[in-house]
Amino acid sequence: MSRVLEDIGKKLLAGDKRALARAITVVEAGGKPATALVKELFNHSGKAHIIGVTGSPGVGKSTLVDALVTEARKEGKKVAVLAVDPSSPFTGGAILGDRIRMQDHTLDKDVYIRSMANRGHAGGVSLATYDAIRMLEAFGFDVVIIETVGVGQSELAIAQTADTTILVLMPGSGDDIQAIKSGIMEIGDIFVVNKGDLPGANKSATEIIASLELAHHPTSWCPPVIVAISETGEGVDKIWQAVKDHGSFLNENDQLNERRKGKVKTELAEMVAEIARTNLEHSLESSDEIKDALSSVVARKLDPHSAAETIIRKLFGAAMESERTTNGV
Amino acid sequence: MSRVLEDIGKKLLAGDKRALARAITVVEAGGKPATALVKELFNHSGKAHIIGVTGSPGVGKSTLVDALVTEARKEGKKVAVLAVDPSSPFTGGAILGDRIRMQDHTLDKDVYIRSMANRGHAGGVSLATYDAIRMLEAFGFDVVIIETVGVGQSELAIAQTADTTILVLMPGSGDDIQAIKSGIMEIGDIFVVNKGDLPGANKSATEIIASLELAHHPTSWCPPVIVAISETGEGVDKIWQAVKDHGSFLNENDQLNERRKGKVKTELAEMVAEIARTNLEHSLESSDEIKDALSSVVARKLDPHSAAETIIRKLFGAAMESERTTNGV
Repeated sequence: MSRVLEDIGKKLLAGDKRALARAITVVEAGGKPATALVKELFNHSGKAHIIGVTGSPGVGKSTLVDALVTEARKEGKKVAVLAVDPSSPFTGGAILGDRIRMQDHTLDKDVYIRSMANRGHAGGVSLATYDAIRMLEAFGFDVVIIETVGVGQSELAIAQTADTTILVLMPGSGDDIQAIKSGIMEIGDIFVVNKGDLPGANKSATEIIASLELAHHPTSWCPPVIVAISETGEGVDKIWQAVKDHGSFLNENDQLNERRKGKVKTELAEMVAEIARTNLEHSLESSDEIKDALSSVVARKLDPHSAAETIIRKLFGAAMESERTTNGV
Repeated sequence: MSRVLEDIGKKLLAGDKRALARAITVVEAGGKPATALVKELFNHSGKAHIIGVTGSPGVGKSTLVDALVTEARKEGKKVAVLAVDPSSPFTGGAILGDRIRMQDHTLDKDVYIRSMANRGHAGGVSLATYDAIRMLEAFGFDVVIIETVGVGQSELAIAQTADTTILVLMPGSGDDIQAIKSGIMEIGDIFVVNKGDLPGANKSATEIIASLELAHHPTSWCPPVIVAISETGEGVDKIWQAVKDHGSFLNENDQLNERRKGKVKTELAEMVAEIARTNLEHSLESSDEIKDALSSVVARKLDPHSAAETIIRKLFGAAMESERTTNGV
């Protein structure tokens, strides 16, 4: 590890916020420096309660996160917020605006707020999120809130980096019905019907509760459904209590380990996919055989599925091939 | 290939729309049947003009697509619309509503409209999109319009399956500024400022034009910026003309081949990543070495980056390792 990285690691552990900011920039960029830093700090991680907050744009996620930070601070917890935007370009403005709104907290030395955006790599942002969380944990935050901008597939992947996932809905948006239909309910540990002063809030809550009773739950945790108005803070104390209850539930039932195992699985699968993708990109320039396969597809002499088979054989050799046969993929 | 698949392929080529619908369902589901069907029909593909329409929710993409279908039909072109929602769960309702709005066209036998949603697989929807386009081409559509719901990273990937990409903006949303800042401008071949009757339309257009002059363009195509009102059809003829102009440009300058080469590269990289991911998922159940690596990470004895290295060595053998060393990954 380079002297610079070693220095960042040491200062981060000593509580230097500038070093923390640099560390997150390093893991965001990925590559060897990120790997080195994670190796260095990994055994200092794993101590925070990671809370994921997700939901459609406009449901008031940022306001809710803001209010949750206030609750956590009342108890003296050190809180970090990681606002992740996997679908960067067009929503960047919203995140920026949200962050400006949260300036109250930025004057608080025990609150840290950071945005992360897509760097153009598929799967890149969720991988970077895992590592950024590790940096925040190593620094010593008690609570890390991951706020995602939407609920697409990459947003879900990011929400699943959390120990406790809060799904935020609002009345009358039809989101509740969509969520129920799509089976997305299963990822929520806590449901918040935000903007609870709008018409239909209680109806939405009732529908969610009804569907939760029908849904299959992998654990004995019964997700609470809370109507709140983040703007005024109404109901936010209940949400915070639910977060703590869920944390206790995970600890008492050895669920935390199970959940973290699932997260590690997902992360490793993404890493392996990412490395495979990178390998191919390099090989497209260096291997004649792979270049030929590409040209044949463009010339429509070879279909892309057959080309992928050729490439996999070339890139990964016999090991991969036998795995595929064994598993009937 | 099974008799059933063979039958679907033959009927599709003979112009049977039910067979087309079944074929798309097959490629959407992926796996061996999808591969078999693509192999069968691949050399009948590659003949349509693929138009991608993308932009933030609410800018009026569906209305514009609807109007473009009308333009194409005036010239007797057979048109297919593929509405792709990579971030499915929460926006599913909107797509459904849009499709109902397009019912005028569904009575027209030379128009085909189909929605595709995320099946939960990372990268899955864009891979399925490539294959669905092939089915539509084999059927004999002259024009295939790919409409995506948002402009996140997976949406961009899908837009890039197109020959001609239309980026739809609206006045006063701040999207134009965001687009300019983020470098997303480079993916647009045609820019549409939709809802042109709203205040600020011309200002938005001027800003986009100014930024396009500054931007780096990989080709000599200068993207037109068109103010339109899709709702009334105003300006849609100009957009359609621009689409045709861009098609001619691609053909005359051998750009079509270049662009398709880029698309094939992206598709192959995604396929390889997907196969690697699937392999790992299977191996997590079957290989003790990989299971141990996973447990060590959960127990914080091993950091995930080192675990990924172990797994790659185990999964892909020496071939992969040497590639990595050679390429300095």
